[in-house]
Amino acid sequence: MSTRPTILVTNDDGIYSPGIKCLTNIAKKYGDLIVVAPDKPQSGMGHAITINSTLRIQKTSYHHALMEYACSGTPVDCVKMAVNHILKKRPDLILSGINHGSNSSINVIYSGTMSAAIEGALEGTPSIGFSLCDYSMEADFTQTEPFVSQIIEQVMRKGMPKGVCLNVNLPKLKADEIKGIKLVRQSKANWVERFEERKDPYGRDYYWLTGEFVNFEPEARDTDEWALSEGYVSVVPTQADLTAHKMLNDLTYFEK
Amino acid sequence: MSTRPTILVTNDDGIYSPGIKCLTNIAKKYGDLIVVAPDKPQSGMGHAITINSTLRIQKTSYHHALMEYACSGTPVDCVKMAVNHILKKRPDLILSGINHGSNSSINVIYSGTMSAAIEGALEGTPSIGFSLCDYSMEADFTQTEPFVSQIIEQVMRKGMPKGVCLNVNLPKLKADEIKGIKLVRQSKANWVERFEERKDPYGRDYYWLTGEFVNFEPEARDTDEWALSEGYVSVVPTQADLTAHKMLNDLTYFEK
Repeated sequence: MSTRPTILVTNDDGIYSPGIKCLTNIAKKYGDLIVVAPDKPQSGMGHAITINSTLRIQKTSYHHALMEYACSGTPVDCVKMAVNHILKKRPDLILSGINHGSNSSINVIYSGTMSAAIEGALEGTPSIGFSLCDYSMEADFTQTEPFVSQIIEQVMRKGMPKGVCLNVNLPKLKADEIKGIKLVRQSKANWVERFEERKDPYGRDYYWLTGEFVNFEPEARDTDEWALSEGYVSVVPTQADLTAHKMLNDLTYFEK
Repeated sequence: MSTRPTILVTNDDGIYSPGIKCLTNIAKKYGDLIVVAPDKPQSGMGHAITINSTLRIQKTSYHHALMEYACSGTPVDCVKMAVNHILKKRPDLILSGINHGSNSSINVIYSGTMSAAIEGALEGTPSIGFSLCDYSMEADFTQTEPFVSQIIEQVMRKGMPKGVCLNVNLPKLKADEIKGIKLVRQSKANWVERFEERKDPYGRDYYWLTGEFVNFEPEARDTDEWALSEGYVSVVPTQADLTAHKMLNDLTYFEK
């Protein structure tokens, strides 16, 4: 029986996307690979789970992993399915990505990639979500390799506290142009949306969601947006407690 | 022109569900109603948004609101669509719910109801998500009325800090059995999943996600799970910063 660590790899762009292929190639160095990833793109799915319909899984061989399945559900479904049904045990490490596009700042809450990592952390497994801040169809994921490897090695060596995962974003730079890795917090920002209105061939309106990213704190020098803009890889320790703790003292009109 | 506040109401169970009907009936007392809610159940959608397909909206009249639309998207899509396309301005208040089932503790991250409220807060509007901890088909939402009204009145009078919303859960009790309202934090908990395996009529496997809720801190007396178990309405101030701030000092193997 293998004594290598068991590494679960998932993503939100789908099991056949170039980002996850790059990640499985890197992850193979570190352990036995299990890949359970969506059978179609699931970007923007946030922490969605499938409870109103059924799930299916289908064996694939694209990653030459020890086990691999395409799953009809969301990234969070993939993690739950892998841990509770396919493996029937917790893996030693969960890696999600490499996402095609940024999951820094507020993007984390919309991100299927990061929700898979958060789900992994909730279940008590060290988990890392990786994203490349490059939306181009020709995005070169291989440039991320030295930093993805370095972060995986650190987490395998040092572990992660239960409930915490890492949100790793890589700038759109060649590997030798990247200045290093910075531990930072999630930047306060928002998307200002615009709905692009179109008419279908039958004369009915439909809409595309579009938007513009607005950084509320462009001066701050301890955020992921800052690190990325300076040419660093950003690492944000991330967890699923949404409590606004400070408000527990400030909202005096409710009894504690 | 009306000088009454503009109140946007949404949910995740769908625009025709009993919980949102109860909420619109209550909200009418406080302002002019705009209802934009999913055209079908969207439970468990978390902070999902629709970016890989188009959105549609359809006028409805079920709530006798000033404006109301059923939207093909997720709860977060509904808020974005309402604020940026239908109203073209921020409402004065956003209410989401009343959800059919609990959104306390870790449920908040899977919850479409709460994601709509978090999205509202991100956009700078005081926002409240309401949930009734009763999964029965005969759940009596009218029992929530005195507490829902009281919390709406407090928030309208005192406002909410930007970026913060309220996660309100109501115990499955008659109104006169509820002891009061408690300001508490999100309890640490998790779902331990089990996938129920079935075969379709064609012999292929499919799965239903099921699970059991596990409270990691049953002794704590400052959490939403505690408040609900004691017969209180729980109010958790909630925001979208997922940074594990303490870890910024603890994860010494990355440079700050």
